[in-house]
Formats: sequence, C-alpha cells, structure tokens
Amino acid sequence: MTGILDRIASPADLKGLGPKELAQLAGELRKEIIAVCAKNGGHLAPSLGVVELTLALHRVFESPTDRIIWDVGHQAYAHKLITGRRERFGSLRTLGGISGFPKRNESPHDAFDTGHTSTSISAALGFAAARDLRGERNKVIAVIGDGSMTGGIAYEGLNHAGHLNKDLVVVLNDNEMSIAENVGALSNFLNRTVTSEFVHTMKKELEGFLGSLDRLGRGVLKVAKRAEESLKGLFTPGMLFEAFGFEYIGPIDGHDIGRLTETFEKVKRFDDAVLIHVLTKKGKGYPPAEQRPALFHGVGPFEIETGKVLKGKGGAASYTGVFGEAIKKLAAEDERIVALTAAMPDGTGLTPFATEFPERFFDVGIAEQHGVTFAAGLAADGYHPVFAVYSSFLQRAYDQVFHDVCLQHLPVTFAIDRAGVVGSDGPTHHGLFDLSYLRHLPNMVLMAPKDENELQHMLKTALEHDGPAAVRYPRGNGYGVSLDQTYHALPLGRGEVLREGSRGAILALGTTVYPARDAAEELAGAGIDLTVVNGRFVKPLDRELILSLAQRFDRLMTVEENAVQGGFGTAVLELLEEEGVTGVSVLRLGYSDDFVEQGEQHELRAIHGLDAPGITARAREFFGK
Amino acid sequence: MTGILDRIASPADLKGLGPKELAQLAGELRKEIIAVCAKNGGHLAPSLGVVELTLALHRVFESPTDRIIWDVGHQAYAHKLITGRRERFGSLRTLGGISGFPKRNESPHDAFDTGHTSTSISAALGFAAARDLRGERNKVIAVIGDGSMTGGIAYEGLNHAGHLNKDLVVVLNDNEMSIAENVGALSNFLNRTVTSEFVHTMKKELEGFLGSLDRLGRGVLKVAKRAEESLKGLFTPGMLFEAFGFEYIGPIDGHDIGRLTETFEKVKRFDDAVLIHVLTKKGKGYPPAEQRPALFHGVGPFEIETGKVLKGKGGAASYTGVFGEAIKKLAAEDERIVALTAAMPDGTGLTPFATEFPERFFDVGIAEQHGVTFAAGLAADGYHPVFAVYSSFLQRAYDQVFHDVCLQHLPVTFAIDRAGVVGSDGPTHHGLFDLSYLRHLPNMVLMAPKDENELQHMLKTALEHDGPAAVRYPRGNGYGVSLDQTYHALPLGRGEVLREGSRGAILALGTTVYPARDAAEELAGAGIDLTVVNGRFVKPLDRELILSLAQRFDRLMTVEENAVQGGFGTAVLELLEEEGVTGVSVLRLGYSDDFVEQGEQHELRAIHGLDAPGITARAREFFGK
Repeated sequence: MTGILDRIASPADLKGLGPKELAQLAGELRKEIIAVCAKNGGHLAPSLGVVELTLALHRVFESPTDRIIWDVGHQAYAHKLITGRRERFGSLRTLGGISGFPKRNESPHDAFDTGHTSTSISAALGFAAARDLRGERNKVIAVIGDGSMTGGIAYEGLNHAGHLNKDLVVVLNDNEMSIAENVGALSNFLNRTVTSEFVHTMKKELEGFLGSLDRLGRGVLKVAKRAEESLKGLFTPGMLFEAFGFEYIGPIDGHDIGRLTETFEKVKRFDDAVLIHVLTKKGKGYPPAEQRPALFHGVGPFEIETGKVLKGKGGAASYTGVFGEAIKKLAAEDERIVALTAAMPDGTGLTPFATEFPERFFDVGIAEQHGVTFAAGLAADGYHPVFAVYSSFLQRAYDQVFHDVCLQHLPVTFAIDRAGVVGSDGPTHHGLFDLSYLRHLPNMVLMAPKDENELQHMLKTALEHDGPAAVRYPRGNGYGVSLDQTYHALPLGRGEVLREGSRGAILALGTTVYPARDAAEELAGAGIDLTVVNGRFVKPLDRELILSLAQRFDRLMTVEENAVQGGFGTAVLELLEEEGVTGVSVLRLGYSDDFVEQGEQHELRAIHGLDAPGITARAREFFGK
Repeated sequence: MTGILDRIASPADLKGLGPKELAQLAGELRKEIIAVCAKNGGHLAPSLGVVELTLALHRVFESPTDRIIWDVGHQAYAHKLITGRRERFGSLRTLGGISGFPKRNESPHDAFDTGHTSTSISAALGFAAARDLRGERNKVIAVIGDGSMTGGIAYEGLNHAGHLNKDLVVVLNDNEMSIAENVGALSNFLNRTVTSEFVHTMKKELEGFLGSLDRLGRGVLKVAKRAEESLKGLFTPGMLFEAFGFEYIGPIDGHDIGRLTETFEKVKRFDDAVLIHVLTKKGKGYPPAEQRPALFHGVGPFEIETGKVLKGKGGAASYTGVFGEAIKKLAAEDERIVALTAAMPDGTGLTPFATEFPERFFDVGIAEQHGVTFAAGLAADGYHPVFAVYSSFLQRAYDQVFHDVCLQHLPVTFAIDRAGVVGSDGPTHHGLFDLSYLRHLPNMVLMAPKDENELQHMLKTALEHDGPAAVRYPRGNGYGVSLDQTYHALPLGRGEVLREGSRGAILALGTTVYPARDAAEELAGAGIDLTVVNGRFVKPLDRELILSLAQRFDRLMTVEENAVQGGFGTAVLELLEEEGVTGVSVLRLGYSDDFVEQGEQHELRAIHGLDAPGITARAREFFGK
C-alpha cells in the first residue's frame, strides 16, 4: 500500500479513505513536507503540527464552497498538497514557485491570503456576513494558533463575532507556542495551569461547601461529587470563549483524525459561533523538529537524517547577530537601556540580551501595538527602550509610533530588522515600506547602516538621541567587515562620502551602498567618474552635503531598498524642491509601485536592479548620456 | 459655603475635605465644566461622568508621584481643574489654550499623553515596569472606559500585564457606552446581561443539582442557597479579568466618593495587578447630557439652560452628511454595497444608512484593525464594503490596509472623514498623514474632492473601481454648492482644469482647491495669470495633464491639506523625476514637518498658509519673481 497522496487530486478524494489509509496519507504528507523544507527551507514545525487537522477539515467540510482561512498561513503546506498543488510543491517558496502562504491567485481552496498573524477571525467573520447577506449556507472556518491569539485584532474579531453570533467555526490550534515560548496571561490560561486568585478562592469555597454537605451524611456524597465536577468544569479554557459568546468544544487531541472528524461533523450541523480547542504538537512526526520547535519554526535547508541545519555561504556575522551583541554591550554601560521583542527573541537577536539582563528584557507576545506603547510608558518614566522588530510587523503599530512615541518625543529606539526584501516569505514579509511610513512622522530620526559595523554605531547614535529613532537593516549576513569594539555616536544628519568623482553622484542607503560603490568603480574604468555617498540618514537628511552635490553636478542618483514612493530618494527630491534647486536631474532607484514577489534576496535585488550590476547598468545609462 | 474649587491649587488640597465639601466641590467642578464646554465645545458627557472618580483618585493617590493615565483623555477636565489649571481652563481647546487631552508639557500631573483609545493599560504597564526596575514603590493607575476595552491594544496590554503581574491598578470606567452604544460580546458581558450558552447550561445543571438536594430534605436548603450564590458569583464581569490574572473588585458605584475612596485605599496596599470595575453615568449631573450622552459626548457650543446645541455659521451641508446620503442612495442601487463604522455611526454619517439597511450595516466597535480585515473578508466574498472612518483613526489599521486589502487587490472603499486639520481636538486627531501613509501602498486609488458635490461622484468612482480606493474629505461644512442628484464615476487619474492662465500653474487638492482658485483670481488682478487645477487624484496622478503643464510652465505650485512629506506635492515631484523633467521649479504647500496645534480649522489653515490669503501670498512670491 503506497502512494495514497498520488491519488489525492482534490479534497474530494479524501472522503473514501479509511482510518488506516488516512494514517498512511498523514505519513506521506509529512515525508513530502520534510523533503521540500529540507531543500528549500520553510515553516516546517507549524505545518507538521496540523497534518491530521488539515485532513479532518478537508474530509468534513467542502472546500472551496466552505471557506477555510489559515491564520498566518505558514501551516498550510499539507493543505496545499491535497488541493491540487502537489506537482508544484517542490517549488515552494522559490522564485516563480508556489507561495509558503495561502494565495487566492494560486487556488480557489485558498479563501484568503494571510502572512501576518491574527487576522483569520476577522476575515472569517467577513465571509460569514457575506454568506448570510446572500442567504447561503456554506461554513466558514478560521484556524488560528494560540500564539496568534495574543494579537489584538484577534480579540477585536472575537468580540465582534460573539456579538453577531454568526455561523462561524474557529479552530484554536493550541501548541503552547507562538514562534518561541508563548507569552501572556491568556496562554497560561489556555495551557491548563490556571492559578489565579479566583480559582483559588473558588476551590476553597467549594471545599467548604462539600464539607458541609458531608456533615449531612454519606447520602449526599454522590451529589456533592457531581457538584465538584461541575465546578471544576468551569475552570476550563472554555470560560473565556464562552464569555465572548462562543460555544466551546475541547480540548481535543489534534492528532486523532477520528476524534477531529467526529467533532467537525457535529459542529457542521450547528449554526452558532463555535470554538474548537485542538491540542497539537509543533513539529509532530519529525523528532528534530519536535525537540527544537523554535529552531524548526521557520528553518533554512537542513539534513533530513540528523536535523542539522546547513549553513549558508560564508561565515559573516548576520546583522541580527551583530545587533544582539551590540545592544548587550551598550546595556552594560547604560542601565536606562531595556529591550523588547514581540514574540521573536531569537529572530531579532535579543536572546543574549535576555540571558544577560532578564529583568530588563520584555517579550510582549505577538502584540506590536502594545509593545510600542509599553515602550513609550517606559520612556516617559526615564528608560530608553529598544524595540527590536521586523519591518513589516512594525506596520501593525504605525499609529502607536505616531501617537505614543513621536507626538511625545520620547526616546524609543526601533531596531528594524528584515528591512528590504526578506526572500522566500514574499510580499507579506518584505520590509519595503518602513522608510515611507516613518519618514513623514515628525520627530523621527531614521537611519540605515551600510554594513554590520556601522549598525553598531547607529545603535549607539539612536541611544544617545533623546527622542524617537529608528535603525533599519536587512535580513541575512553582513559583509564580514571588522567590527569596532567601541561604538561612537554618528553626527545626526550627516552622510559619508565614500568616493569622489567628477561626473555626478550616487547617494546610496543601507544595503545598496557597497553595490553602488562597486558600480562606481566599474564605471570609472569606462570613464564615468562618480562620487558615491553613504546616505546614513533618511531623516534628518544631510542637507549641506546633498545641496553641495546638487551645485557641483547636474545629475544625482539615489538608491535604496525601499518602495520608491516616499523613501530616501523622495526625501532628496523634497529637499531640492524646498531649497529651490532646479536643473538637477535626479534618478531614484528602489522598488517600484508594486508588491515584490518571493525569491532569494539576491535574485530579487537582481530582478529589481538593486545589486551592483543593476546599479551599474542604470548609472551607465543615466550618467553616460 | 461657596468656592471650594477656588481653594484647590493641587490635589493635596483635597485631603482635608469632608464628605459635604467633596459633594459641593463635585458640583462646582460640574458647573465649571458645563460653562466652558457651553462656550468652547468639548467632551462634556465623558468628563461629567468621572467627577467623583477623579476626586477619589486624587484624594487617595499621590499624583504626580503616583501616575494616573487617562485612556483617550477626553474625560480629564475635572483632573485638569484640580491640578493647577483652573485659571486657564477657559481657554480649553482653543488656539494657544490648554488641551482637551492630557499633555505632559502642560502639567506633571499629566503622566502620559492620550487622545486615541485603548492605550492606557500598555502605557501604565510601561510605567510600572520602569518603577520596578528603579526599585521604587509609586502606584500606577490606568483609567479606561468600557468602550476603549474593545480596542485590540487594550487586550494586548491586559494579556501582558496579567503575565507580568506588576503592581498596577486598572480602573474600568463602565458607562455602558463608547461614544454611541457599545458593541461587542464583551460589553454584553460587562453589562450584566450574560446570556451565553454557558450560563444557560450551568443554570440548568445548578437547578438539577439543587433539585436533588431538595429531595434530601429541607435541612440542606441553606447549604443549597449558598451554593447557588457561589455559582451566581461566578458569572460576574470579574471572571474575564481574573482569567487574565487580574484581581477583580466591583462593580461599585462610580458616583459614591466614599465607596470609591475606601476601595482605592484598600487597593493602595495591594501589590498585584488589580482591576476595579466602576459604574458611572455619562453626562452625570447635567440632564440634557444624561438624556443624550452620544450627542453630548463631544459637543459644540450649546445653551446651558436648554441644552440646545448652537448651530455654526451658515447652513451648508457637512461633508459627513453628504457622504451619508450618497452612500444610502448608492446602496439602494447596488446590493453589493455594505457599510462599516468603528463605533461612530453618527460621526461618520452612517446612521441614515443603518436605518435604511440594518442588515448591511456593521458597527465593529472601536476596532479599526478588525474593521478593515472584516471588510476584506466581505470583499473577498463578493461585496463592496465602505469603511467610513476618521483619518487619524485609520492609522490604527495601516497594516491591515496593506496586508488584507491592497495585497489582495480587494474592492474596499475607505471613506476617510476628518482629513486635514480637525480643529480643537488638536494633534492626536488631525488627519494630516493619510495621503502619506496610503500613497505608497500598491493598488491604492486615492482621491480628495474639491467640494461636497464632488465627494458624491468620488464615492461612485470608488464603488465602481474593482480594487482598493480611498476618498478623503474634511470635517465640517461644504461650500453649499448644488448637489447633483445622479452620480457619475470620474475617469481614474484625471484632474480638472478650473482656470487657464499663462504664468504658471497651481495644482490644488481637496479643501485647498477653491482657496487656490480665489488666490489665482486675486493675482490675475495683479497681472499674475495662473492656471488652476483640481488634482482630484493623488494616485493615480494625472500624468498627462501634469506633464503638459510642466512643458508649458517653468513653475508649478502644489497645495494640499496634508503633511508636506510624502503627499500630493511629493507625488508630483516623483512624477517629474520619473519622466526626467528638469528645469521646472516646484513649490509644495502643506503642513510642514511638525505636529499641528489645536485651534479652529480656519485659524490653523491661516497660520499654516493654506487659506486663500496664505496661498495668494506664497503664489505672489513664487510666480511673481
């Protein structure tokens, strides 16, 4: 009996399978997922955890008529494999390949695109409302992890859903993890270790009550037992969801296809809002991932037999790692420094800091909004918080950056990791807008380092600045430049001239600085002699330097790894306009007005002309005229 | 016994007052608040509701050592009056006067600036963490309304606070209202009308249980009664907060200074996270406001004796009103249209729509993030949602606009009210960034009408567009232009030439179009003959028109009511750069890189040079050279 997966062209093909075949299919799906992740990297542990859940959902519900919405969506690999994408599954997360997240343009079975956390209940409620307006009867199912439940929008969605009481199924996939260990009162609550004062008090009351019954004689003991059971039943995770108006079912074993199928069949007949609490194990079925679920949450290529993660080319320190060491070192000298992450201590490089200064480290959970305002509170009371966060996730807290930090001119430093293209995670995760969404906020200082060494000095600069500041840097390795052991604050709003030339100037920022310099070196050989500036500051701009370049040259080129609307190059345009400079031709390179696909970082930079050859070609054309 | 308020220079002066004096002081505070709001307008009902709460807090806690953080902050008028700002209270919400919200730069008693909802728990937790790091013992108190509790960041804060279990006091000011009626499962829950399946089931079990006890004879009846009480006690609002790890106290009467003082004294000795549930009445003590709390939530000048709200100058329809009628009319013809508000059915003009199409209207509560993703779900399933929302509040959902709407290219229309300066609410509420935070998002169509009639056509345009679109328009009255009865979609990305001139061109947007035309008329008399264009679209821009102007003229001026960074004028600069146009001098008018103060809209526009005289002066200088 081999190759059941070969026969699954669509979820309809699951219906006839018996328990043994389903178990075999689960094994085949895991094998396929492990094989492709070992090659391409991917969200292995989350996807392994929901194989049985996926099969049960697709056996019972009728996708795509019934809508299944995967929160975050990184756990949807098994879903993809049984909804017609097996052939292309080897291209997972690669350039031109299938996405690691649900995409409506990939399959009708992907009801809603996800990538960022905690959106599924809101989206599902939208589908449920649409269905009811049309008078149809299809089911809508949101599958959300307990980690995603810490995001405020999930709660907003629950609150509204409980109010509307639509026919809606929420599957709470509880693996006791977000990416790392879970944070928050809610997670203690879910994880069956409720120890609140409340429970304590009630237990004592219960004991007293049972005691008094006891005195009435053994005849009431059976009844008392029942009362005890009833009361105990109250302190289940269900309490919270019942409070929101959901019917609660669970917890049930998320690896038991039979139980899951049975439960879903029952729920299919309900027409209220129901929450099914399912317990799963992250990384299930692959021992290395079960043992180290955080490492295998999103993992690069690895060796299947050993679970050994394969190192990328070269051993240069990552920006993330350099940040992590630098913040630890700076904190040793300045006790005002505290550090925050939103559920990503490893991803943001804060783990060493957390080990060294546990009391000055805060993991706020997947809750960027709260993280920023919590930081503002710390700053208003004398501390200098550093919020290490991915560029595309800080988007969640745009209003808090405006309202709680910039408006009060508070010293909060944003260490913005994963700025620019991030690679295989694709458009939901690229950090291509931070310059544009932060630059127009008054009081913000905005920097990007040319290499990992400069990142250290910029962090120092931000920490010495008595106001909001952001340093944005890319995913991945630096250049292996030597790392200064003492850090100095850079003068605010001053760029750095890397090369003097006579034909024109390239103003580059962040990851594009060295490629721009390389381009200039190459073009020098062709007689096009260019000045190259490391911009360093997007805000405040180096007005003096840029204006002097605009006086000397009739052509300026800007290069950045950000959307070309509203970023660094635009800041240069605005400066020239403010100063009434005309007659200077400016060419801005960046990502044009469209979402950027998935692919390796170097592939995407090449496609969009932001590597050395791309910059060389554009500069040759622009300055060579 | 008169004039106790005269003797209150700081909260310390409250300590010696007896119950009678406190009652009198509460009356004096109300009188003062009513008098100033009747003159200046303001958040009357919220502030009247917390007079006793404010007095009790300041009697027991030692501000500013103890930190009191007012969520939203519009209820802080009594707080301001007893913390040294009585003299200046008459200037409330006026240009150069004291703010209607807490401001750290106004008083050390204002621990943290607020304005947007739901931030206080997060900020307070930051203060608590800072205190603990320093090893101090001051108390931190967040005062948050039940309406604000529907915002996701409040939940994120609760979740983290329960986890950290800091010494923290949250006062839940429960008036069963947000601005209008409250929304959400939570509010039912708070408001003691829990009807969930859970309670139903438990009651039945309890009855059965008591029944079986009964059969054992009358001897157990007393015990049974006690059991019943215990079980009933479980279904209090406290359950939810206990679940989050808070100690719960309440509900208590929020107008009983004695009870409040007693409770706060008790809580002062705790060192855990405590939530005190206080019941208050919005508008308390002023019958017109008690009867119509939504109207008197934020109110313009009114007649004290009758509560009659005084009408502003002129009777032109407001943009909000025109929007409300237009969306209702359009919805009658197109059943795909549904409408959403985040707790502002009146403020956004959606009440007539809600009355006409109750099943197609959704009030999502104060939950902009959820609102946007819920809309995206509706749009993904065939509907065309219109989310009517204030510019500065949509900031909360920036990530959802990116991730759930633009990335999926879904037909969601954002009707962005209160764009530009809003007046007395000041910097937290001005809508000066929407063009900058939306323009760089791929797939977004972005418009601003020159008058209330054009708003109708733009709404039609957005609804005919099969993708994301936003129409932004100001607070207040239109121009009284005649309103077309049939609406037509405008051609996407086409501006409108209002005046042809020979010296140069002004490209104006939204509220600045008529002032720009007036400026051109005046300058024509001085021999400066200008073309005036109504830009209409910020995205897509009218490339053809702008490029032709750039060919004809060497000077272009842009005018908009938005931050000058990243807005309409910047879009024009970017276009010229993209097309390689040089030698054209551009001058962009807008709000410069700073937060804009409070004041009447016309005052602020004048100060920042965005009314007709301001535009005339700048244009005379720019084009007259």
